[in-house]
Amino acid sequence: MNKRKQPNARDTGKSGQNRRKAPTHHKTRARKASKGSSAPQDAYLYGLHAVSAALANSARNLEQLICTTQVAHNLVEARLTLRIKPDIAAGGEISALLPPGAVHQGIALKTPSLPEPDLNAIAELGTSPQSNARVAILDQVTDPHNVGAILRSAAVFGVSAIVMTERNSPPQSGVLAKSASGALEHVSICRVGNLARAMETLAKQSFTMIGLDGDSSDELSALDLSGPIALVLGAEGAGMRRLTREYCDWLAKLPASGPMRSLNVSNAAAVAFYELARKT
Amino acid sequence: MNKRKQPNARDTGKSGQNRRKAPTHHKTRARKASKGSSAPQDAYLYGLHAVSAALANSARNLEQLICTTQVAHNLVEARLTLRIKPDIAAGGEISALLPPGAVHQGIALKTPSLPEPDLNAIAELGTSPQSNARVAILDQVTDPHNVGAILRSAAVFGVSAIVMTERNSPPQSGVLAKSASGALEHVSICRVGNLARAMETLAKQSFTMIGLDGDSSDELSALDLSGPIALVLGAEGAGMRRLTREYCDWLAKLPASGPMRSLNVSNAAAVAFYELARKT
Repeated sequence: MNKRKQPNARDTGKSGQNRRKAPTHHKTRARKASKGSSAPQDAYLYGLHAVSAALANSARNLEQLICTTQVAHNLVEARLTLRIKPDIAAGGEISALLPPGAVHQGIALKTPSLPEPDLNAIAELGTSPQSNARVAILDQVTDPHNVGAILRSAAVFGVSAIVMTERNSPPQSGVLAKSASGALEHVSICRVGNLARAMETLAKQSFTMIGLDGDSSDELSALDLSGPIALVLGAEGAGMRRLTREYCDWLAKLPASGPMRSLNVSNAAAVAFYELARKT
Repeated sequence: MNKRKQPNARDTGKSGQNRRKAPTHHKTRARKASKGSSAPQDAYLYGLHAVSAALANSARNLEQLICTTQVAHNLVEARLTLRIKPDIAAGGEISALLPPGAVHQGIALKTPSLPEPDLNAIAELGTSPQSNARVAILDQVTDPHNVGAILRSAAVFGVSAIVMTERNSPPQSGVLAKSASGALEHVSICRVGNLARAMETLAKQSFTMIGLDGDSSDELSALDLSGPIALVLGAEGAGMRRLTREYCDWLAKLPASGPMRSLNVSNAAAVAFYELARKT
């Protein structure tokens, strides 16, 4: 009943022998991406949730914590053990460090971008016999608010990692971190040079590729959602690129009972993650 | 098994006799709100989806359509019947009419805010014997991006109306309309002076009030979701106000299998609308 674009890795044995051979250089590309990409304007995280989560993450190098007197008082009240002494500043002084209009809630943290894992580390999540690993693949979703919100939903519904392209994907900026509301510390971001090759690598480790596509005749909830799954989402409007779509094992839609069919990409991701979590 | 805050209207007969008597002046307030609230900076809708949907809505008064040569060409190509002749302008000239940073995609439309229906018109959706009407109630969700995205998800999952407070809710601005991506033409917005009284009015017409609350012990999917339902969402962080919470028949959470528990409010709405649509 469901549209199948390629043999399903689960049906062809653990290594998905029927797939095209994965090229060998994607690992190098992923490593290259792991250097991070923080531009000067991305040096600070801001906002209470994003900064609190970053402060609690021992993997974070903390360079400077700046907050207002009031926020410093609240941090003491909350008995938060700080690894770094805060510099006190007025709200306007904090604003001056950040992009225009940043809603910083009186706190900012200078910290390098977190290291991003190699794709092979993500792929290995699929190798254990009972794995129900879930990852998301974003095909050129460029808006940092959307990617941040997707990270946040991933952290709620147990999606371990987001794989996205080196180009046309947002850096680990303050905007993204604010929208992620702390999820940047919990969900891995993995950037790859070639998304189709990354999908091939994940498929080799038993991940089933499910592309979200409003034009599919099948609903996501009707698919067998057991085992490791990579959910693939395209950019709003353009959708998945041709090659990305071709590397999906299945295409599925979310049901639309109202007069419109297309959700905001972060809302589509949240609903799909929920459906995947229900079936885990 | 589920937390019940008040007698369920469905259990007590059509009119929910056990509820407190509804005050009589909410109707006046709703009418007052129906005048709309467009400030000068909200005079224009912009963006392809928002403007196309507004142009297709015969209930819209169109005052001025402005677009670039390219967009005008595309409108002709798309064989869209226009009720208004577009004024051609450069992208920068369109930007100058809009809030800073507005992504207008070469098109803007000057149009008064749509009239907003009286609460009683919303409440009547619940009166037919087989009604599965769905509405959403927003308790001081202030961000127009979030409210716009909620409207969009409502239009996809068959939620007919959004009830929100006159104060601390965004106007029908260009920002809201852009995020709604056309949904402003399909989903009614109803503003009320007193949310608790509005809930009482809806409950009298057989609506069950379900408040989304991460601290509830019950999951939304475990509730009986048949019949007319009003889904109540609080502001991010603060959540529902005390009185709003007390007027809910049930409180329910979305399941969180990952390390975080709290979704962005528009993502929470999308997931809850999806769950309501599954059970319709």
